[in-house]
Amino acid sequence: MLAHLTSPTLLLSESKVRSNLQRMAERAARHGLDLIPHFKTHQSATVSAWAREYGVREVTVTSLRMAQDAVEAGWKRITIAMPLNVRELPALAELAQRVNLSVFLTNAVAAEALAARRIPGLRYFIEVDAGYGRSGVPWDAREEIEGIVAAAGEAGFRGFYVHSGHTYAAGGAAELARVHQSLLDIIVQMREGFGGRPLEFAVGDTPACSTQEDFRGVTSIGPGNFFYYDLVQTELGACTLEDIAVCLAVPVVQVIPARGEVIVHGGWVQLGADRLPDGRYGAVVRLQPDGTWEARVTSGAYVKKLSQEHGTLALPAAWLAEMKPGDLLGVLPVHACATVHGMRATGETVVVP
Amino acid sequence: MLAHLTSPTLLLSESKVRSNLQRMAERAARHGLDLIPHFKTHQSATVSAWAREYGVREVTVTSLRMAQDAVEAGWKRITIAMPLNVRELPALAELAQRVNLSVFLTNAVAAEALAARRIPGLRYFIEVDAGYGRSGVPWDAREEIEGIVAAAGEAGFRGFYVHSGHTYAAGGAAELARVHQSLLDIIVQMREGFGGRPLEFAVGDTPACSTQEDFRGVTSIGPGNFFYYDLVQTELGACTLEDIAVCLAVPVVQVIPARGEVIVHGGWVQLGADRLPDGRYGAVVRLQPDGTWEARVTSGAYVKKLSQEHGTLALPAAWLAEMKPGDLLGVLPVHACATVHGMRATGETVVVP
Repeated sequence: MLAHLTSPTLLLSESKVRSNLQRMAERAARHGLDLIPHFKTHQSATVSAWAREYGVREVTVTSLRMAQDAVEAGWKRITIAMPLNVRELPALAELAQRVNLSVFLTNAVAAEALAARRIPGLRYFIEVDAGYGRSGVPWDAREEIEGIVAAAGEAGFRGFYVHSGHTYAAGGAAELARVHQSLLDIIVQMREGFGGRPLEFAVGDTPACSTQEDFRGVTSIGPGNFFYYDLVQTELGACTLEDIAVCLAVPVVQVIPARGEVIVHGGWVQLGADRLPDGRYGAVVRLQPDGTWEARVTSGAYVKKLSQEHGTLALPAAWLAEMKPGDLLGVLPVHACATVHGMRATGETVVVP
Repeated sequence: MLAHLTSPTLLLSESKVRSNLQRMAERAARHGLDLIPHFKTHQSATVSAWAREYGVREVTVTSLRMAQDAVEAGWKRITIAMPLNVRELPALAELAQRVNLSVFLTNAVAAEALAARRIPGLRYFIEVDAGYGRSGVPWDAREEIEGIVAAAGEAGFRGFYVHSGHTYAAGGAAELARVHQSLLDIIVQMREGFGGRPLEFAVGDTPACSTQEDFRGVTSIGPGNFFYYDLVQTELGACTLEDIAVCLAVPVVQVIPARGEVIVHGGWVQLGADRLPDGRYGAVVRLQPDGTWEARVTSGAYVKKLSQEHGTLALPAAWLAEMKPGDLLGVLPVHACATVHGMRATGETVVVP
């Protein structure tokens, strides 16, 4: 397989994606949760078809564009997880005729615009902020929340969505558990406050969804990164190196023994610009002839610098001694979402075992 | 024009691109240099057609894929500015039948593979490293250089290419001039060393090409970022804010007065992940109805945080007071190459005056 690759190529391991899906589906089942995965990481019709085999019936996306892709891929229940963009109402109205569409509301202005449009069947979540500090209504802003429901109408109100993105800043397992528990405490309080309505409570982040075993009050989980995982997730303890399901194959174009480095075709365009706290832009791994890779980080084998399409890789002396221009190396990404996005405009993705 | 935009859209100012092209073409003419611009920043057939009007006859690209795009756009003389990827030799041989193609050599292994292929008409530069520390043969490694020429053959040898990427690390005009002068000193020494051959000496970086008036020994310049410029170039003094030719239009989806922020649809997917030393991910500007923008940075109006498709913008109180969901704002990019790349897979580009 490798012999046919000529340029930077994203290797996508079917067995690893399936095992990640299986594990997440089991966790969801164990806790009576709906798994409504986010498609932002993979953005792939192939992977989306695999997800269906694990019982997924509803999906989450970030944009109208991604929702349209999901419709093309045959999905019938789609949530756009971004505060409603009122400029897109005409296109959303069209989409809502074809599928069961949900949107996010975070303010009364958008809620009124949505209501004025009268889109049959369209439902909504109110996005609440439980400490991440990005979008959403503060979870305890009761009056604001009731104002949004009053403006948009009770009929389409599905419940609340909380993206606990601050789990990514957690400095270890204990801190991650603490952030997650504080989210659950908030959900329990919200359930009491909004008692009597059959509301959904959806959470989303991959770190908590991959590690926690307490989901009291939650009705669905919507992780996205877990399809592929990456080095950030490994560092957070959300996955092992074995679970990382994508690897960028890069051709060596120059070997520089004096610097202990090789230059590859593969820069931030292909890999994304994310960096681990220790400065690495990726871990370098050896590829097997079938396109799979050794899931093992070797000290001294890492991506040191990236420019637009050049990568500078540091390699141990033993590796360097046998490298020549034309060889292929693998790079485990720091941030899979960025690698996949980069490769959408610049390269091919190949499914490997 | 703006009224029709519904999602994040890249606004591309034709007048600004033309004025940037005009200025660079004049500088090249003034110094008797060929302008062989790099297409990595714009990757646009429209912009490439404009370049032709300013006398450009030959172009530089980073990859085989980009070379194929340039062929489609009608270019007949193309250099791939990346050390030769020997895995691509069959495709390069095919391309060389259609256009006047040049490649980069940095080592004897690739030179031998190239020679073995016997591709009629294909020529090469030897890429030399004059201090940047990325790819290329050290400029004074005479023996290595002669080895490459011996392996690849004297006939196709065009000369040397030096990308002085370390001008980007220059902390001001004096330091930038110093880096450029040291490059010229090296070129003069190389010219003496390789005297008697009619060799080309090509340099490429936008900061030096935009500011310097000494190009002794140089035969061509290949800047790429100058088509659009960006905030990094402004900070380096390579352009003014007026010269920045792209601006990302982003729809406001939530206004958060208590935090002095708005949330927009527009994250690192659209803008790129680059950050200025002061922490800004972009400058926020007001858009005009015709899709042009105020080329003025307002203190307190900047991109504060980015996630995949969400942007958190800090705005002055006076702006915030009049913002509502559905409004559009403009973002001047930190790094235009990254913004353009991001938008290739996710959005539209609209040409504005």
